[in-house]
Amino acid sequence: MAGNSIGEIFRVTTWGESHGPAIGATVDGCPAGLELDADFIQKELERRRGGQSASTTQRAEPDRVEICSGVFEGYTTGAPISLLIRNVDADSTAYEEIKDLYRPGHADYTYEAKYGRRDHRGGGRASGRETAARVAAGAVAKTLLREYQIIIYGYTLQVGEIKAGKIDFDQIELNPLRCPDNHAAAKMEELVEKVRAGGDSLGGIVGVTAQGVPPGLGEPVFHKLDADLAGAILSIGGVKGVEFGIGFDVAEMYGSQVNDPMVMKDKKVGTITNNHGGILGGISSGEDIVMRIAVKPTSSIAKP
Amino acid sequence: MAGNSIGEIFRVTTWGESHGPAIGATVDGCPAGLELDADFIQKELERRRGGQSASTTQRAEPDRVEICSGVFEGYTTGAPISLLIRNVDADSTAYEEIKDLYRPGHADYTYEAKYGRRDHRGGGRASGRETAARVAAGAVAKTLLREYQIIIYGYTLQVGEIKAGKIDFDQIELNPLRCPDNHAAAKMEELVEKVRAGGDSLGGIVGVTAQGVPPGLGEPVFHKLDADLAGAILSIGGVKGVEFGIGFDVAEMYGSQVNDPMVMKDKKVGTITNNHGGILGGISSGEDIVMRIAVKPTSSIAKP
Amino acid sequence: MAGNSIGEIFRVTTWGESHGPAIGATVDGCPAGLELDADFIQKELERRRGGQSASTTQRAEPDRVEICSGVFEGYTTGAPISLLIRNVDADSTAYEEIKDLYRPGHADYTYEAKYGRRDHRGGGRASGRETAARVAAGAVAKTLLREYQIIIYGYTLQVGEIKAGKIDFDQIELNPLRCPDNHAAAKMEELVEKVRAGGDSLGGIVGVTAQGVPPGLGEPVFHKLDADLAGAILSIGGVKGVEFGIGFDVAEMYGSQVNDPMVMKDKKVGTITNNHGGILGGISSGEDIVMRIAVKPTSSIAKP
Amino acid sequence: MAGNSIGEIFRVTTWGESHGPAIGATVDGCPAGLELDADFIQKELERRRGGQSASTTQRAEPDRVEICSGVFEGYTTGAPISLLIRNVDADSTAYEEIKDLYRPGHADYTYEAKYGRRDHRGGGRASGRETAARVAAGAVAKTLLREYQIIIYGYTLQVGEIKAGKIDFDQIELNPLRCPDNHAAAKMEELVEKVRAGGDSLGGIVGVTAQGVPPGLGEPVFHKLDADLAGAILSIGGVKGVEFGIGFDVAEMYGSQVNDPMVMKDKKVGTITNNHGGILGGISSGEDIVMRIAVKPTSSIAKP
Repeated sequence: MAGNSIGEIFRVTTWGESHGPAIGATVDGCPAGLELDADFIQKELERRRGGQSASTTQRAEPDRVEICSGVFEGYTTGAPISLLIRNVDADSTAYEEIKDLYRPGHADYTYEAKYGRRDHRGGGRASGRETAARVAAGAVAKTLLREYQIIIYGYTLQVGEIKAGKIDFDQIELNPLRCPDNHAAAKMEELVEKVRAGGDSLGGIVGVTAQGVPPGLGEPVFHKLDADLAGAILSIGGVKGVEFGIGFDVAEMYGSQVNDPMVMKDKKVGTITNNHGGILGGISSGEDIVMRIAVKPTSSIAKP
Repeated sequence: MAGNSIGEIFRVTTWGESHGPAIGATVDGCPAGLELDADFIQKELERRRGGQSASTTQRAEPDRVEICSGVFEGYTTGAPISLLIRNVDADSTAYEEIKDLYRPGHADYTYEAKYGRRDHRGGGRASGRETAARVAAGAVAKTLLREYQIIIYGYTLQVGEIKAGKIDFDQIELNPLRCPDNHAAAKMEELVEKVRAGGDSLGGIVGVTAQGVPPGLGEPVFHKLDADLAGAILSIGGVKGVEFGIGFDVAEMYGSQVNDPMVMKDKKVGTITNNHGGILGGISSGEDIVMRIAVKPTSSIAKP
Repeated sequence: MAGNSIGEIFRVTTWGESHGPAIGATVDGCPAGLELDADFIQKELERRRGGQSASTTQRAEPDRVEICSGVFEGYTTGAPISLLIRNVDADSTAYEEIKDLYRPGHADYTYEAKYGRRDHRGGGRASGRETAARVAAGAVAKTLLREYQIIIYGYTLQVGEIKAGKIDFDQIELNPLRCPDNHAAAKMEELVEKVRAGGDSLGGIVGVTAQGVPPGLGEPVFHKLDADLAGAILSIGGVKGVEFGIGFDVAEMYGSQVNDPMVMKDKKVGTITNNHGGILGGISSGEDIVMRIAVKPTSSIAKP
Repeated sequence: MAGNSIGEIFRVTTWGESHGPAIGATVDGCPAGLELDADFIQKELERRRGGQSASTTQRAEPDRVEICSGVFEGYTTGAPISLLIRNVDADSTAYEEIKDLYRPGHADYTYEAKYGRRDHRGGGRASGRETAARVAAGAVAKTLLREYQIIIYGYTLQVGEIKAGKIDFDQIELNPLRCPDNHAAAKMEELVEKVRAGGDSLGGIVGVTAQGVPPGLGEPVFHKLDADLAGAILSIGGVKGVEFGIGFDVAEMYGSQVNDPMVMKDKKVGTITNNHGGILGGISSGEDIVMRIAVKPTSSIAKP
């Protein structure tokens, strides 16, 4: 059945395989009158793109996005926004040899179990390439959220045993690993390089912080804000877990430690600490929404 | 907007507040011809019910479920199954005094921020009581899954610092904490009792294992099986995180350690280890689906 | 699969069979803070109820609605509103003899083809009784629409060969057929009585007019306002057709006749005529929304 | 909110404006392993295309469809099928002069009321051009339905006062109006030509017949097969009404005339007559599904 869409009011549908003619996304439900900058979408794609650093995936993918609909004279019209990215660097001959293999850690076997066949070229739909379409659609979402002064940071908290020692949002864009701690970033890069040279890969933890989310968002009970976010995060390939606020550490804590005392901040209701991670009862509290996400090592490695 | 339903083909809608006249669930999309045993639903509700142990919530709620529709002569008809549970033990006078308070750790403030008002009696819709409706609907789902030899275990892995030393499914129903390690269960109960006596509460970790899930379930890419499960799990009040397979431990591991080697098992494709937790590329692999869930301490405590 | 819900933001789910223990509806997504009068829902159910006139269905169903959730101190809370109606007058012994028959015009055969079994008591889910749950949920919708000064009239335009000669909304509630023309109503009632005495039934046409709908409602392209309304109308048992504005008469008309000239009315954009029936391009125009609905004769007749 | 998708299990999303860079459709949920012929999609687009006859719209649109995803080595993979059609003949300069006008019969005003702005070039999203994307997606659906021996005919029953005197499916493709009566077709074409020469346009009635639909399809109660079909049909621009089986004629008929007697046909349950139009209680009966659709005259005319 249909599984390639997310969202009800603002809905994103992605399509496209790693080595097919193109990939893309349709954003349906974006309000009219939003100034949408094609260059911004392009820049977001370039941020995602490999090759900027030895630490990340090495395939060169000079992605060019085309806005095929939904924007007129620079502004959204309320019609669906179709974003198209051609696959220009897709040599699939290398995949001929794995055609009849189920690679460990990959979705080769499960896709075949489900569909009775699979597009073996580069993982097909299960490829990390699918996220390029998300990044393009995400750039539209980011543009919209900016109108409401909502800023979202994504950053690397841990790679193997190296952890960020601090979270300084200003340092995120200063290093290729997007670590909020430049010092740790250097060590991470060094470690990744060493591991890759040995034909292996490494897992890590990604953090996400959303600032400026007003209180009152989220739908009890099955579409709690954290429930919908967790579903969205786990839909990204390679993610093995997600936690909010103090997350799994909660297991060894007392209620009296976890409950965040409430206070008035700038005439608004807030909490002194943010153990809850910005969401209470599935509804945003106005505090920063904080998530931590476990990402497994790339399955595509030389080492068996 | 509407947020009280989950599922597309088999859809559960719950309704009802902690201290309203009743709570209930509607199960829509259950196949016709399923033998549905009202006693089994009743037993599941009793399993959930507090008061069996000093370690769990103390309010006595003798829940009686009534099947109001969708079942004829003991079998489902394909029509929606409406399940009704009266709130018989709902004294709301005790909540009058918190009417104008935002209790820390609760959803009092966020509900009011969202709706402009709230049902302050016992947490209203945000109460843990809402899960009784889930349990009733879940009993229908369990009955259906049993037809396909799919068995789901839920169990307590950790309470405070006490961890289960082993996972023996046969011990789950032998202790009130539903810990798969009777020995640890005794210690957990002792600890809980001590903490409660001190006016406090404790967090913990819950495990879920689904056995017998055939390979091929899950919808790429936004409705991956783990994505939908994560969303469902986080929709339960008090859950702060979820992980699949090795989960967050993945951060410090190499790809060569994480990738599960594939083998033939009983003429079926399987994996030697189960680091992936039964889901690859968002599709079930045929191995056990394994989740770990972080649950925060009950917010309702005497200690400030 | 699940098919008993309608609407995305304001969603109604109905359940219950003609001769089961109860029927009901859950309204999810109703905004908080709406003053909801239980008596009004009750009155709407009584308006629907048979027995007021010899012309309509004769079974006495003294329906009492109970609001089980979602309302606190007279106002909606934003939580789902569960409405429960017991089936008190459901003697199903009379249906034993049709247990193994497929009655012509009924859904007996199709339900069995779909589900492999059926609840033969009074049509089960396919019974007109299902509409009682819609009426109860509709009373909530009406209360909400009233806040926006949107008024909806439903009325009988034709019964057999007798047509309403005029549409006077003030006469609708003055006769049991709810015909907007009292004079025609008397003739309709006489005809219905005669036909029923002969063991037969009659078809008719129902009109619906929605006044006060602001311009701009409806979602291009698959959820045009008329598309969603048509789907909703055809979901009512016995409906065989729906048309908007001039409807089928359009077939013999010229574009120059059909296009409604635009004018300013009270400083708002409007049209001189209303051939379009209040919806253009799937979006409300601000003019009255006008529908005509074809309803087949009751299938339950003495005459073979 | 999002409104450009239809279907839950097999879901079609369309995008694109009349004079934007391209239009397209994404088909999500199409089963894997279906042999999909790009030429067939192309031929369906050519069937739709104007210019074949003086009677239909005159703009030349040599539409070329590109399958961008979801098909590998000629077979569907289960991944979403993205279909792309470039707008090559889109000169929008002609529309500059209507930029500030609300054309009668068009959606100019309602789009502006809804979105605060509009793409005035050729009707933007409200253009009949949107249906090209439907035709492309429909070709995928047709291919799938063919596997189940389900054949769907669409044909012109009436244009102005000229009606088809018979329904001979073999004649549909023999005339440019796709009338199932060649004789009437010639008269229709003549009439259309005359009316067009006078700067005007004409309405008509379209018939649809689905053969081979097995009994048991459709979801009570809000997703009855006729309800979903009615919603789909009304989502097409210019449609003002739809009826099933005898439709509006039901108003003047008796139950004893309308009820279709049931019989055994080739060892299957069937009905002697087909007044019900192939759907009973919202579920297919196995008889032909028969719809009649009222289409208004093209609003774009020279005559004011």
